[in-house]
Formats: sequence, structure tokens, C-alpha cells
Amino acid sequence: MALIVQKYGGTSVGNPDRIKNVAKRVAEYRSRGDQVVVVVSAMSGVTDNLIKLAKEIMSLPSEREMDMLLATGEQQTIALTAIALHNLGVKAVSLTGAQAGIVTDGVHTKAKIHNITPKKVHELLDQGNVVIVAGFQGETREGQITTLGRGGSDLTAIALAAALKADLCQIYTDVDGVYTADPRIVPNAKKLPEISYDEMLELASLGAKVMQSRSVEFAKKFGVVFEVRSSLNENPGTIVKEETKSMEDVVVRGVALDKNQAKVTLIGVPDKPGVAAKVFKALGDATVNVDMIVQNISHGSLQTATNTPTTDISFTTDKADLLKAQKVIDGLKKELGFNDVLTDEKIGKLSIVGVGMKSHTGVAGKMFDVLAKEGVNIGMISTSEIKISVTIDLAKGEAATRAVHAAFIG
Amino acid sequence: MALIVQKYGGTSVGNPDRIKNVAKRVAEYRSRGDQVVVVVSAMSGVTDNLIKLAKEIMSLPSEREMDMLLATGEQQTIALTAIALHNLGVKAVSLTGAQAGIVTDGVHTKAKIHNITPKKVHELLDQGNVVIVAGFQGETREGQITTLGRGGSDLTAIALAAALKADLCQIYTDVDGVYTADPRIVPNAKKLPEISYDEMLELASLGAKVMQSRSVEFAKKFGVVFEVRSSLNENPGTIVKEETKSMEDVVVRGVALDKNQAKVTLIGVPDKPGVAAKVFKALGDATVNVDMIVQNISHGSLQTATNTPTTDISFTTDKADLLKAQKVIDGLKKELGFNDVLTDEKIGKLSIVGVGMKSHTGVAGKMFDVLAKEGVNIGMISTSEIKISVTIDLAKGEAATRAVHAAFIG
Repeated sequence: MALIVQKYGGTSVGNPDRIKNVAKRVAEYRSRGDQVVVVVSAMSGVTDNLIKLAKEIMSLPSEREMDMLLATGEQQTIALTAIALHNLGVKAVSLTGAQAGIVTDGVHTKAKIHNITPKKVHELLDQGNVVIVAGFQGETREGQITTLGRGGSDLTAIALAAALKADLCQIYTDVDGVYTADPRIVPNAKKLPEISYDEMLELASLGAKVMQSRSVEFAKKFGVVFEVRSSLNENPGTIVKEETKSMEDVVVRGVALDKNQAKVTLIGVPDKPGVAAKVFKALGDATVNVDMIVQNISHGSLQTATNTPTTDISFTTDKADLLKAQKVIDGLKKELGFNDVLTDEKIGKLSIVGVGMKSHTGVAGKMFDVLAKEGVNIGMISTSEIKISVTIDLAKGEAATRAVHAAFIG
Repeated sequence: MALIVQKYGGTSVGNPDRIKNVAKRVAEYRSRGDQVVVVVSAMSGVTDNLIKLAKEIMSLPSEREMDMLLATGEQQTIALTAIALHNLGVKAVSLTGAQAGIVTDGVHTKAKIHNITPKKVHELLDQGNVVIVAGFQGETREGQITTLGRGGSDLTAIALAAALKADLCQIYTDVDGVYTADPRIVPNAKKLPEISYDEMLELASLGAKVMQSRSVEFAKKFGVVFEVRSSLNENPGTIVKEETKSMEDVVVRGVALDKNQAKVTLIGVPDKPGVAAKVFKALGDATVNVDMIVQNISHGSLQTATNTPTTDISFTTDKADLLKAQKVIDGLKKELGFNDVLTDEKIGKLSIVGVGMKSHTGVAGKMFDVLAKEGVNIGMISTSEIKISVTIDLAKGEAATRAVHAAFIG
């Protein structure tokens, strides 16, 4: 008898019929004698609708009250899911995050899980129930309702799996698993049977948006092995786990193209200590999300007024943040005295990821060679132990992705 | 500085604009320096929609899960109302029933309030907050979410007013108060400045559906004086309180016509002990709601087979229950051996209510005289200390109501 935690997202429980389908799947696992804990999100559309109602009343509503409001979405789904299981003759009880013992800090709308005391969950499981827990929410020690922010239901599932010492944690979503590339771009992309936490993290932050990074980080920290799979079919998904020796045999696990980035370059920045710090502190204060940062060595040109050597600093950010970023940079111009700012929205960020890169050399060279043969010019380059990212012309992004995939994966 | 409990029903908080209006009214009271506790219902339509979702999944969903589901309706309104108050610059905090300390028994979907520990409410009030409490809901000692059934939000307000020893309890609704008659039937009906609990109870059960009886009974039991008034205007409403000596000067407080009753008559029932008990026990077991019951003395005719004297028994029930009642009665025919069953859906129940009847004689005679002059034949008659009800031809119901109102009230 295994203890399984299953998480179903908003699309999987989007209407009564889909909830019935989820119940069928849960009932199948239950009928094999397994204990099942089900974590559900709000029905798709419900949360957005509640946010809309609140914004009609006040443009910037209190975060404490938004948590009170939004927590109702998941509470509705757990009740409906329990009812759907009853309808199949399966014993089931729903629990809010608080009732399931999920204790968080008091940072409303993006609370962190403090600890989980799953006594009630264990009791109900032992009485033969499927236990359905509201994702995305918890309660502070003082009894305030909190929510965990984006990707919160995945986090609930993984944290519950850790606290319950579950044998299996399944994240059901609308994709089949994690692929070597986006199948819409690379038709022969393959579903990965397994992937390491670190690779998953790199891919999550690279626009292969299967899961939020924080859930994967949590799983890594507590060693929770989980499977990403589809709620629409019976196909096995992708197992995400600690890297194994054999994983290193594969040099490149996946290729990702992020079309949502923009590049900002500061030309002729005085090359002296503290300048970069000022730039990125100001961007951070304005909540501009910066991804790649590249600064090259100081070049020959001197700033005319002060005779200081100058350099160029480039960074990328989400397209949505570009205007905000430009405003911040413009505000710094006088203080820092750089020459000019260039922006480019027509870039793509192409990345290859794989733990095998640690033990294989020449990966970067091969990637650049493939791109050169495709006639693709490389803008910025940024690397980590298991990842190489380059910015390229957006128009050539998809062709470049296919070429790199073909060269490394097939 | 007074402590005021205000309750707003589903229509009063039916959309963001109406919630803003409620906030405006609350803010006015607050600006006078009063402490305000606000009890709200679910936005109109929300509860029905949730019930519909559940029934699409299972025709008879678990009551425990229905409570989990329906409690979200009020939770949404409290958050939105708090946000609307923030928008006016008023400090406000929302609390679920459980957070407000409302402890109930474990009878899901129709729980009774066990006790209220309003420590948290007091704390928040003392910190200068308007406290917004979810109506209709509570929590058992074991931490299960419960709901209080129909009229539950009124009950929450009145029980909170009792527990907080509030100076004033206002029930805001879509009518101006309690009237001497339904103004749609009697155009010159007057709004009552005050009414006793007992009169209100009789009127509530007579189809003047301002409030559920249980809330009025609770208020009577704990001596909570409350005001029924409209959320759409500033008019003073009707104060409901313990009867005073001066109230007895008015003989008839109100006239009510209930068009929703049907009459069932059992002809030739053997007049022996236990027969009536069997009939009404069977109806009760089938959850048929019986209102008036009339049995006259045994008449001359004998049951032919056994030579037992016979009588007729009549009762009224909601039209909606008539078929169910007939089925129950038909099932008893063999056992009890009555001759026939007559039903009549074309009846109205006309009632006059007033604590003054206790000290005034000839009220019934006057009522019957008025009806006779109108050419209205009286069917059944039933009286209590402060009420006289008669069944009459439905077609003559409204004219009879006007005539009786004119004779007693003006």
C-alpha cells in the first residue's frame, strides 16, 4: 500500500465534468489499495474573477483581504471534488489548508510554508478516506488565512508529500511531461522520462513553464521525487529527482527558447567601482526582473569630461518590464554619466541545459558552431555549470532552436 | 460611543457598487465615533450557483461538503466589504464565522449556535477597526466548518449583538420595515415604528417574510432589541422588542394574507383515541409542514362497519407539500378507515395579530362580522392568545384583507 499525493491544476478541475474525471482517476488509485491525498487549485477562471471584483472596488486592495477572498476558490474545489468522489462511492473528506495543518509565515499573497502538521490528514487516511486538501493556502500561527502566491498549489502538494513521507507525488497538468524542447517549435521533441531538479530549475526559469521554480527548489531541498504528467491521458510523465550518475551520460537534456525577453545596453559607462551596483539596485527597487547580465572588459574609449575609461553593460528583462527599466535607467543617466542607452525587443534567448555538461567539454563551442552554420549571430552569452544561454535575433529563434536540438538531441 | 451590529443581506451586497454603498453607510456610523460590527450574507446568486455546481456532480451531496462549499460565499463578501471600507479610508478587518468565535453544534447545513467567544472581535474593535463577520456560518469545537441554514445571517447578527452586548442591532434588508399589511394588497398599510417579538413571530410564520422565526426567537430569548430597515434609504425602520404595556393599546398590529396554503380534509374519521396522532405523526415523518389543524366534535354519523362515531379532521399545509401529504393520507386510509379525503388549493389564510387582543374582547366577533359583510365565507378558524387566523376563498383574499385592515387599523 503506497501513499500518493496528487495535484490537479485549475484546468483539470475547470468544470463539474472535469472534476468528475479527476474523481475517476483518484478512485482508480484508491481501488488498488493506495492511500491518496489530492491537492486541487481553484477552478480555472474563478481566481481571476475574484481579483476583478476586488479591483472594481479598489485598485490596490489589501493583501490580507485578498488572501481571505482568493482562498475561497480552492475551498470550493475541494468540496466539489469530495462530492464527486462520494458520487463514485469513495469515502472522501475535504480540508482547507489550515485544517490540513499547513502553517505559513504572515506575508500575505506570497506566504512561505513554515511547517506542516499533518495529524488530521493521517487520521482521515487511516479511517479509509481520500483526503482532499486546498492548494495555494495556509494559515499563520495566529489564525490568519494566507495564500502562497503563483504556483502555490504545486508547492502545497510537494510540501505535503514531504511532510507525509509520501511514496509518490504526481503533479497533473495539461502537458504530458517535460520535453527536450517545445514540441510546437521542434516537432520531434521527445518527452523526458526523467530529469534532475537542477535541470528542471534551469528549464523552469528559461520559459519551459511547466512549474514554478520555488516548488522545484522545495522538492530539491526535501528530496521529494515527483512526476509531472497529464490529467487528460494515461501516459507516464516525467520523473523529477536528484541527479544520478547515469544522467550525466546525456550532455544536453533540453533546449529552450524564451521569446519574451528584451535587451537593454548602457553604452559608455564609467568603469569604476559601484556603478553596476547602482544600476541593478535601482532596477531591483523598481521590481524590474533582470535575467542575464553581461559586462565586458573596459574598452579603449575614455569618457571625455573625466578621462575615466568606459565600458558597456547589457542586461535582459521581461518585455513587460522594459518601459519600467528604461525609466529607471534614464533617471540614473545624470548621476552615472553614461553616453547612451540602447534597447532591443527583437531578441530570443536560446538555452541548452544538461547536468552532463559538467563532465563533457566543448559543448559551448559545438553550440556556437551550429549557430554559425545557421547564419545566426550571437549577442550576449551567459553560462552556468549546467546551462548555456545566448541571445539571438528573434526572427531566427525557432530555426536556431531546431538546429541546436538536432545537433545535441536528434 | 455606541456598539452597533449591522447585518446586510445578499441583495444589499449583490455587486461591487452595492458593496460600496454598504461601506458608505458603515463609514457614516463609524465617523460618528460608534464601533461597528458588520455581518454580511453571500452576494445574491452566489449561493444558488454553488448549489447548482454541486448538484451537477451529485444530486444529494454530503451536507458536510455543502457547508465547506457554501461558507465560501460569505467569506468572499466579507473580504470585498473590508476592501470597500479601506477604499474610504476606514480601518476594517474581515473575519470568518470561525475566526469571530462562533461555535456551533455539528448538524451540517442547519447548525445551531452553541456559544460565541467574541474576544477577537473585541480586540479588533478596540484597535479602531470596523469588524466584518461572515454571516450564516460557524465552526464546531472540532474545527469543522458549519452553516446555520435559512436566515442564518440574521441569526449571526442577533447572536453577535447578544454576545457583544451591543447597543443596537440593525437588520438591513430590501424592505423599509414591518408593515401593518402587505402594501401591494393594502395601499394604505403603514410602517410600524415598533412591534413585539411575539407579534413578529406570528407575522413571520404568516407569510410576512421579513425574517425567519428562529432569529426572532433567538432575539426574544436573549432580549436583543433590533431594527429592521432598508439599505436603500435613510428611513427609520421597525424596532422589534419585548412587548411593553403601551403596546396593548393597539388591538391589531398587522393583517397578513398567506396565499400559499392548501387544505386537506379527512371525512368520516373514526372518533377514537390515537387517530389524530397517527395522521400527524405520519405527516411529520414525511416532512410535510402542517400549519392549522381543526377537528370538530364528533357528528351524528356512525361508521357503518364498526358503529364507531366519526368526525372530520382538516389541516392546512404549503401548496408545495400537498401531493406529498395526499400520498401519506392515502397510505393511512386502510388502517384508519376514514371515508374520504378532500383537498382545496384555492384557499387563503387571513390572520390578524396583536398583543392587544389579550386585553380586548370581541376581536374575533368583529373580524367575522367584517368578513360576513364582505360576503366572505369562513372555512377553518384557529386562534392563539395574540392571533386569529381563518381560511377563506382565495379569490376573495385580497378584498377581505383590505376590509379587515380598514376595520381594525384604518
